[in-house]
Amino acid sequence: MWSTTFPHVDVLSDEQVDAVHEHAMTLLEEVGVRFLHPVAAELLAAAGARMEDQLARLDRGLVLERAALAPRSFAVRGRNPERTVRIGEGGLAIAPTGGAPFVLDETGHRRPATLEDYRRFVRLNQVVPQLHLAMSAIVEPDDLPVATRHLDMDLEVIRGSDKPYFADGVSGETSRDCVDLAALAFGGREAIEREPVLLGIVNPISPLQFDERMAGSLIEFASAGQPVVLMPFVLAGATAPLGLAGALAQATAEALAGVTLVQTVRPGTPCVFGSFVCEIDLHLGTPIFGTAGSALAVMAAGQMSRRYGLPFRAGGALTARAEPDVRAAQESLMSLWPTLLSGPSLVVHGAGWVEGSLEASLEKLAQDAWPLEVFERLLTAPLPTAEEDFALDAFREVGPGGTFLGAAHTLRHVRESAATAPPQTVVGWRDLMDRYEEPALDAGLAEELTRFVERRKREIHAAA
Amino acid sequence: MWSTTFPHVDVLSDEQVDAVHEHAMTLLEEVGVRFLHPVAAELLAAAGARMEDQLARLDRGLVLERAALAPRSFAVRGRNPERTVRIGEGGLAIAPTGGAPFVLDETGHRRPATLEDYRRFVRLNQVVPQLHLAMSAIVEPDDLPVATRHLDMDLEVIRGSDKPYFADGVSGETSRDCVDLAALAFGGREAIEREPVLLGIVNPISPLQFDERMAGSLIEFASAGQPVVLMPFVLAGATAPLGLAGALAQATAEALAGVTLVQTVRPGTPCVFGSFVCEIDLHLGTPIFGTAGSALAVMAAGQMSRRYGLPFRAGGALTARAEPDVRAAQESLMSLWPTLLSGPSLVVHGAGWVEGSLEASLEKLAQDAWPLEVFERLLTAPLPTAEEDFALDAFREVGPGGTFLGAAHTLRHVRESAATAPPQTVVGWRDLMDRYEEPALDAGLAEELTRFVERRKREIHAAA
Repeated sequence: MWSTTFPHVDVLSDEQVDAVHEHAMTLLEEVGVRFLHPVAAELLAAAGARMEDQLARLDRGLVLERAALAPRSFAVRGRNPERTVRIGEGGLAIAPTGGAPFVLDETGHRRPATLEDYRRFVRLNQVVPQLHLAMSAIVEPDDLPVATRHLDMDLEVIRGSDKPYFADGVSGETSRDCVDLAALAFGGREAIEREPVLLGIVNPISPLQFDERMAGSLIEFASAGQPVVLMPFVLAGATAPLGLAGALAQATAEALAGVTLVQTVRPGTPCVFGSFVCEIDLHLGTPIFGTAGSALAVMAAGQMSRRYGLPFRAGGALTARAEPDVRAAQESLMSLWPTLLSGPSLVVHGAGWVEGSLEASLEKLAQDAWPLEVFERLLTAPLPTAEEDFALDAFREVGPGGTFLGAAHTLRHVRESAATAPPQTVVGWRDLMDRYEEPALDAGLAEELTRFVERRKREIHAAA
Repeated sequence: MWSTTFPHVDVLSDEQVDAVHEHAMTLLEEVGVRFLHPVAAELLAAAGARMEDQLARLDRGLVLERAALAPRSFAVRGRNPERTVRIGEGGLAIAPTGGAPFVLDETGHRRPATLEDYRRFVRLNQVVPQLHLAMSAIVEPDDLPVATRHLDMDLEVIRGSDKPYFADGVSGETSRDCVDLAALAFGGREAIEREPVLLGIVNPISPLQFDERMAGSLIEFASAGQPVVLMPFVLAGATAPLGLAGALAQATAEALAGVTLVQTVRPGTPCVFGSFVCEIDLHLGTPIFGTAGSALAVMAAGQMSRRYGLPFRAGGALTARAEPDVRAAQESLMSLWPTLLSGPSLVVHGAGWVEGSLEASLEKLAQDAWPLEVFERLLTAPLPTAEEDFALDAFREVGPGGTFLGAAHTLRHVRESAATAPPQTVVGWRDLMDRYEEPALDAGLAEELTRFVERRKREIHAAA
């Protein structure tokens, strides 16, 4: 995790922030948000939402009061305590891509991901120091049964990595499994409620809807006190209105509706305010990345998160390209820069994404690691201006027209400089992978985790 | 030219800006700046500099008083008046790369540039709307005699392009030729003094030195009232101290020394404060680009320019890579983003640079054009938040769970949206080149310009 005071770029005036806020409140109060989950609907009704069937109209008083219950920052414990991250208030954690059903293989072809691919992604992610979080769904292993896949994936990420991680839960049932497995791995339910060990992703189904699975997942993670990352993903012109302002207000409303439910389930549970406004190619109807619109939207969304005092989740290194070529690198950095300028506390899809999240690529993940190295220094090491840094003795020694190569000041500092400005070698994914070492895990615990997974698999298959 | 109010990112505190300023002043006052040009030395002595042979010690009173004479913004007239640029106070002009002795040819090999290459670069540059300026030295045609090359190059740029341009003058004599040619082309010396038509580049020979050629060039451009762009290029650890603070103070001192001379030659002449701090690979001793250090340095230098009220020239799309590959694209954007966040008024090397300015590449120039397109929208079109942009009617029409594809609001705005968020096609340099049309030039004037060039060539060869 990085600890940063790097400035955020504000693209909205205070009046514009107010306008987005007002419209988000109008959406929550007048249009409403649908929760296709009976418990969610009951909880919100009891909290004071105006329910009409499963449509919740949420007054701003309720929403803002609940949002204020979420902490401004929180820690997520790593299996290796040195990898524990703090998210919010200057703490910034980067996660790799997630959710891709396909991988780009060595021959440049797209194919469904397998468990073997999955393991390689988990390992490569473990190796890159700038990726602070593991991602259970880094790819979707298509050769595992859908109903029990989450168990294999979370187990693999706990065994193969010692970073805090995004669990794979995508429904009430699967997320409960993820929480139970984590409790087993990290000292029991009480221990993880006290000190979270995983993050849960909750995607609203835009516009303004949480389906049964996502609402169920939210309730399970929140009940266990595990941080919930609200990740609206809106396509301006398809799942949101054309243009940016409406999409931004919508994503704000969706995130806040999720936060309201989390804080209703268990007040004080960490929440992350996410926002992902994507433009589409209006001829093809497909998402496009690295556009000026998404750059403006992510920086604006960062401003909204600060208005609500919530840690902010932003973008990543995104591209629509199907392979990690020059344009993919360009689109990725045209996304990643505004992401990091938005004042984020959490970045998802920081490395490895290709083809609009349809694919993940080991090669792309290794490529994306280099800009993250640069950002690490840029965001965490301010420009030093102590007297010694100005090297006045060197100027007096060298004088106009001379060279600093052999100056006493240069010799005094060459070692530390070599450490802070390392050579810019291109490191491929195979070289990175060679650095992988499986983190030690107590054999008894490993067996216990495997037994749990096997038992749950039997139960799930029996119930099916 | 772009007109922008996009925020700049300040990486130095006010105290740090003061510290850089203080140390720059100490360099000017105590260490001094050498001007290897008798007229420059005389002019500075008369202005009150403490001269010791050709070493000028410049008191801060003199420097700041002279710097204050430079305008905060100025226009440079294009042969096509629609291409006239304003530089400073929100006006931002982008120029392509310049100065490369080699080109990367179609087979991916480096070879000396020819006049034929030169013409192709001038034409490609003319075609890209985001490149607001032409660059006479876009590459160095090696098949033309060094002594008279500047005449052919400036003539070609005047004929083949209608954008305001950087002249090729690199000495008193050659810059005088450039000014004379421009005067002939643009209505006479008086006309161009009133309304500048070209920009001159002056590179201090770091550390703290202006050689005979550069000082001579500065004097010629300044005498004619043509804007002088001071472009210190310092390698931290070689031509500047290791680390960033000393290098930044040095580049500041070098730029201000140049500005002081310009304002002594002809008060009120437009000046641009440039700064280019580059880190080196401490094992190989070669410049590296896209580093965190250079990003911090360019944003810090932007702050220094604002302290002096001078338009700022920044970085570009820079890379050490010898071909326009993925890493070249990454390094270029890791340079270009901080460049544009530094609050610049002028960007040089915005497109086409490879191998640390040793090479220029048509392919790279076309590649670099796409990020510039994105930046154009990002920097010039703030996020619109009028009531209509929030699309409340669409939310009421569509409701939770619906789609906006056919909503009335979408249909009302699809055309304008398609225009502001165009499809993200990759356009190669050959496709761009096909768009080239030679801008019309009065035949009589063209002949006059050619006659001038031929006459000067004869004179120069006769004198050699």
